[in-house]
Amino acid sequence: MTQLERARRGEITPQMEAVAAKEGLDPEFIRRGIEKGTIVIPCNVNHKNLNPSGFGQGLSTKVNANIGTSDAFPETEKELDKLKAAVNAGADAVMDLSTGGDINLSRRRIIEASTVAVGTVPIYQAMVQGYEEHGNKVGLTADELFRVIEEQAADGVDFITVHCGVTMETIERLKNQGRITDIVSRGGAFMTGWMLHNRKENPLYEQYDRLLDIARKYDVTLSLGDGLRPGCLADATDRAQVQELIILGELVKRAHEAGVQAMVEGPGHVPMDQIEANIKLEKQLCHGAPFYVLGPLVTDIAPGYDHITAAIGGAIAAASGADFLCYVTPAEHLGLPDIDDVVDGVVASKIAAHAADIAKGVKGALERDIEMAKARKALDWQRQIQLSINPSRAGKVREAKNAPEQELCTMCGKFCAMKVVEEHLGKSCSN
Amino acid sequence: MTQLERARRGEITPQMEAVAAKEGLDPEFIRRGIEKGTIVIPCNVNHKNLNPSGFGQGLSTKVNANIGTSDAFPETEKELDKLKAAVNAGADAVMDLSTGGDINLSRRRIIEASTVAVGTVPIYQAMVQGYEEHGNKVGLTADELFRVIEEQAADGVDFITVHCGVTMETIERLKNQGRITDIVSRGGAFMTGWMLHNRKENPLYEQYDRLLDIARKYDVTLSLGDGLRPGCLADATDRAQVQELIILGELVKRAHEAGVQAMVEGPGHVPMDQIEANIKLEKQLCHGAPFYVLGPLVTDIAPGYDHITAAIGGAIAAASGADFLCYVTPAEHLGLPDIDDVVDGVVASKIAAHAADIAKGVKGALERDIEMAKARKALDWQRQIQLSINPSRAGKVREAKNAPEQELCTMCGKFCAMKVVEEHLGKSCSN
Repeated sequence: MTQLERARRGEITPQMEAVAAKEGLDPEFIRRGIEKGTIVIPCNVNHKNLNPSGFGQGLSTKVNANIGTSDAFPETEKELDKLKAAVNAGADAVMDLSTGGDINLSRRRIIEASTVAVGTVPIYQAMVQGYEEHGNKVGLTADELFRVIEEQAADGVDFITVHCGVTMETIERLKNQGRITDIVSRGGAFMTGWMLHNRKENPLYEQYDRLLDIARKYDVTLSLGDGLRPGCLADATDRAQVQELIILGELVKRAHEAGVQAMVEGPGHVPMDQIEANIKLEKQLCHGAPFYVLGPLVTDIAPGYDHITAAIGGAIAAASGADFLCYVTPAEHLGLPDIDDVVDGVVASKIAAHAADIAKGVKGALERDIEMAKARKALDWQRQIQLSINPSRAGKVREAKNAPEQELCTMCGKFCAMKVVEEHLGKSCSN
Repeated sequence: MTQLERARRGEITPQMEAVAAKEGLDPEFIRRGIEKGTIVIPCNVNHKNLNPSGFGQGLSTKVNANIGTSDAFPETEKELDKLKAAVNAGADAVMDLSTGGDINLSRRRIIEASTVAVGTVPIYQAMVQGYEEHGNKVGLTADELFRVIEEQAADGVDFITVHCGVTMETIERLKNQGRITDIVSRGGAFMTGWMLHNRKENPLYEQYDRLLDIARKYDVTLSLGDGLRPGCLADATDRAQVQELIILGELVKRAHEAGVQAMVEGPGHVPMDQIEANIKLEKQLCHGAPFYVLGPLVTDIAPGYDHITAAIGGAIAAASGADFLCYVTPAEHLGLPDIDDVVDGVVASKIAAHAADIAKGVKGALERDIEMAKARKALDWQRQIQLSINPSRAGKVREAKNAPEQELCTMCGKFCAMKVVEEHLGKSCSN
């Protein structure tokens, strides 16, 4: 039985207990959230060493790191290193997006090594295998696609991105809309190409019940993908995107009825002033299902710095109610991220998530900042480093710029404000 | 005569013309903004090679980079290199915060070399010289302080931060408030120490007319400093901070009456959900004077990444109406920034400013993103690099991750969404 089916029966599972303990919340709150569909705990029955996390309303904002091989970089080992680095930097989930080398091997080793939830986009593997099998991108059969999904589910994948909302109806809306960057979701693009070429409806939509059966069997959480997400600011929040979201809302409801946990994926590239509306829209159209956003990027012009662009958008999204941020690395729009990019991406998203959690009033969020403020006031450098989001980086910067054991830093030296105030205000004004 | 005095007489100066041309706006709009006090053009009559910029309502959001020597790093040449790097990365202004080595020499060479507005915090130099003269931090006399201000103004400084709002009244409010980090503004801390020790009112407040006389003589724009800005999230938007802002509002009015251009400085460390309120409060209490914010940082726990923390806060602040962002570098809270930190800080702030300008509907802002989106759609890598906020960085990342002349990037390879869509949707859906 899935977490949702068990929640519905009033059962508090060990996974719900674990999530409640991590969040400092009542297990019954978690159970109720799962029952309502506002919280998911992706935890495939076959992912043995998972330390489960919850995603959704009332919980701290979570961060996902995408890893995985590509044609140009097919080695599994490198991706295992990225997994380790991502989790070490604070990622709450990883997605294995492998499309190169031995895809099955990479996935299995990543699941085996991962204590955080592992997601995949099964269409990627299906696309690669279909290409090998048929020599083109359109020969893949629906059965082949479902076989990949079942295989990945059986391996222990905790959540899968499925572009079920890319339908003939949404494609028509897209054509009618007109866009600058058309479709930028790889899965969405592939599915669209397949549908137009074969003149057939999307099998993930048409045979949605078949998908639900697999998901229920292994308790795989569906992450309803946004194949029509905007690929640039000018395309944001258009009719094609919203049409797909409407359909995803219907599919959330069907998943829920079938006892399958579901969340919804969102953009992408969105101007700052449209982010809140996007979040409210998803919550409203999709019955409060957890919202998993990619970025969003608040400008298109910053390749090389898209972790920063995404941190701005992600913070605003999370403060407006988004539950789960997919990181974006400095390599986005330029190439496959390396291990340093992965760390930079995770940390930037964690900053966004934490800043939003303070704004949302998530339990315990501000306390960490208060501890840091006290350490700063006390000029306690060791404690400041320790409390940092990435102690190793903070320590290195401090070391590079200051003599060891130096009490005051090289920015202000003896004119340190903390020192001057202490001399004259003493402890009189600290609380 | 100052720009404000000339605007009041209905005159459109060459500086107003230049700003209007840069912004693509009507010169009369600039003149009216200056007359109302909602726009300033910092342009000291003695800063000969200045290419003037406007700061304020209806204009694009501007970015400042702090540079300057310290005791530990006293060399002028290094700061000139930082000036060059900052302007090259897009800084609209720099502040010379030198406190080490030959302060007069550093300032004069920076002004001479700078085509963007140069600001200073005269209390820093006064503080250092006072320490040399009297052997302590409290012996400085009001006359000595004003002598430094006059000297810096005569050198061609375009705007000066003056902590006029740190008064006996605000210090009382601070004591009554209780804070974790008390005062973190160096100028604010120094002034408070001086006042408490000497039992005298702040000379910048008490002799404000003397300050206005100097400012008017050289058309120095006053940047009314926030000596009581919060130094951590928990101290944000407290009674001490708001008390000072009330007084700054009164001083804005007096500056305006005296024909002196003025802007107001703001926090600092502010939770995301309080940023908009801070901006509205300043605009309301200070007659719409341009708001110059430091960050704001939306969490305290990210030393080593405070350029990102500040980009999140700065984007929200600017979208809410802040006009001028002071950059924060990755070295903040750890030591003096080096040249790489300066570039990282400027670019992060430029991203924030640009994202906000799109949200605010600043003329021409979105157009640059549309050009980038078209280049992406066309897989035109050269043009993408060219349109990037930092072409040299984008180019380097692309080069490191891809073979030369490669059409598709190493992330998706032959499964590039752009390619797949082109094959099946053709040009049908692009507008």
